[in-house]
Amino acid sequence: MRLLFVGFGVVGQGLTRLLQQGAQSLRDSFGFEPTITGVATGSHGTLAHPAGLDKNALLQAAAAGGMAHYPRQDGLLRNEGPLAMIEAGLADVLVEVSPTNLVDAQPALNICRAALDQGMHLVLANKGPVCIGPAALESLARQRGRQLRYEATVMAGTPVISLSRETLGGSGVREARGILNGTCNYMLTQMEAGMSYADALAQAQALGYAETDPRADVEGHDAASKAVILAWALFGRSLRLEDLDIKGITDLDRADVDEARAAGERWKSIATIDQAGARVAPQRLPLDHPLASVGGVNNALTWTTENLQDVTIVGPGAGPEATGQGLLADLLVIHRQYQASP
Amino acid sequence: MRLLFVGFGVVGQGLTRLLQQGAQSLRDSFGFEPTITGVATGSHGTLAHPAGLDKNALLQAAAAGGMAHYPRQDGLLRNEGPLAMIEAGLADVLVEVSPTNLVDAQPALNICRAALDQGMHLVLANKGPVCIGPAALESLARQRGRQLRYEATVMAGTPVISLSRETLGGSGVREARGILNGTCNYMLTQMEAGMSYADALAQAQALGYAETDPRADVEGHDAASKAVILAWALFGRSLRLEDLDIKGITDLDRADVDEARAAGERWKSIATIDQAGARVAPQRLPLDHPLASVGGVNNALTWTTENLQDVTIVGPGAGPEATGQGLLADLLVIHRQYQASP
Repeated sequence: MRLLFVGFGVVGQGLTRLLQQGAQSLRDSFGFEPTITGVATGSHGTLAHPAGLDKNALLQAAAAGGMAHYPRQDGLLRNEGPLAMIEAGLADVLVEVSPTNLVDAQPALNICRAALDQGMHLVLANKGPVCIGPAALESLARQRGRQLRYEATVMAGTPVISLSRETLGGSGVREARGILNGTCNYMLTQMEAGMSYADALAQAQALGYAETDPRADVEGHDAASKAVILAWALFGRSLRLEDLDIKGITDLDRADVDEARAAGERWKSIATIDQAGARVAPQRLPLDHPLASVGGVNNALTWTTENLQDVTIVGPGAGPEATGQGLLADLLVIHRQYQASP
Repeated sequence: MRLLFVGFGVVGQGLTRLLQQGAQSLRDSFGFEPTITGVATGSHGTLAHPAGLDKNALLQAAAAGGMAHYPRQDGLLRNEGPLAMIEAGLADVLVEVSPTNLVDAQPALNICRAALDQGMHLVLANKGPVCIGPAALESLARQRGRQLRYEATVMAGTPVISLSRETLGGSGVREARGILNGTCNYMLTQMEAGMSYADALAQAQALGYAETDPRADVEGHDAASKAVILAWALFGRSLRLEDLDIKGITDLDRADVDEARAAGERWKSIATIDQAGARVAPQRLPLDHPLASVGGVNNALTWTTENLQDVTIVGPGAGPEATGQGLLADLLVIHRQYQASP
């Protein structure tokens, strides 16, 4: 399996490390030996080689500042754009790990369309294309008999997408409720431990959980984009982000947190997805609610189903390796399909 | 897809209700329209019809005391044993839902072998064959190109087996720890709320969670049999139940429970599965451990992985519909495979 990476930031590098460190186990356990034949970044250069690029050298080049630091090699292509690489049939799977753009999902959306059009499978950590245009992409993938997979877009590699689309598919899911933003959950956990909102935010930033501009997290937009993706995965409903009712945690203070605690409850930022749509808001949960005990940067999702009642999964929601694992799991599904019908 | 049920107790009836009540949604969402062509029970009669049995009439016959109450119908076979039905090529999938026998897994094990030999897929809720002889069954299934699936054997339909075998397969699972027996967990939860061991057991029996003879639950053997199945699903290791170190909850009393609580901890009966083997024992967990907050009859499993750290799933561990859902999920996987390569 030949992979073309679009983007090579922390997530792309995380996947590359997993492929490199796990090479022997992936080969022995699954017969899976992928090569990276192309890497196209927005501002750190591009690289391609039909015979495959060296994973270690790619990681070193990225650490050194960009693809220009990759060693010279016969047959290496340094100036191809992603569309040219796709058209050249350089790879079997597009790994979309470029930064998320929730306005129009570009330039990733056009690159994704071109890849499916060319008969490539598509695997994404970038939320943009799945949030903005899932129906058209899914339809294109079906026409071409290719897979569109996006495990890494929600809760990193914690397998909420494959559970939603496949494993729990026949159980009659009526609703899903989740903690989908680790920054908010970390801040609320710290506030319950006695910190002010401002101190909790500063600490989240110091630890790298929150961006310098934390609005996408604390105002609920990141969680909302994941709720839109889950609505598609669960119900095949294509929601518009701007139609969601979104309330962040910015209005919560220590007094609210203390008041909840006195009542045996706990504030959590909860995304809710059902047949009627999706929404994000802080909610007070009783301490014995399965989502109430999810602390720190962990994420969690509870499916309410006809056949199984409630099922809850708790796991990491971010991190280079954890997100890389979501991409790896998707690649293994595609690999298994190839093996089943070669 | 034509199904042959071996056993038709609460689990077989639970699956039948799901197939009947969910018929339209299963057809519309998955194109899945299974027929039940045979039912073979140990002491409540057998029934077969090549064109399919009526699900509602089967449920009514079971409620009335056995298959003898199924209405007369042309072409109905009333005296075929399961092996004869298998040899007659009456069905595509064997649904093994007869009572679990953890000594030698018979008569189910021979029936399972015959079904795979005949080219049928095999789906089980009965733990016996998977606990006693998984390697030979799996090998036979591979030889014949058929599927051996057993989601319903551990944590009912909460998808721990498909997560262990497939979804989390590439994440580098090092260990799994779980609460795999709802009766013990219910009793410990009640003891923490102030009940004595004897009262908690009596209440579990009154509610139908514990058998009249509760030893399989409280002495840890039920959890141990599930640990053996998980060791196979996770690591391909075929453990012998009698080699496991198993400690039940029978030595715990209120004083132990209170002492743990005073220390900010909680007793849970924990099954541990790793490369070295498996074991079951009560353990004191800190309250912020993901398994500590799992109360009542719920079950849970935490996988510790290389790529994702800890992932925990919480869900039902028993119940007719919840267990039926495990079988249904397995049937849908087989159905999807048929659709992918017809």
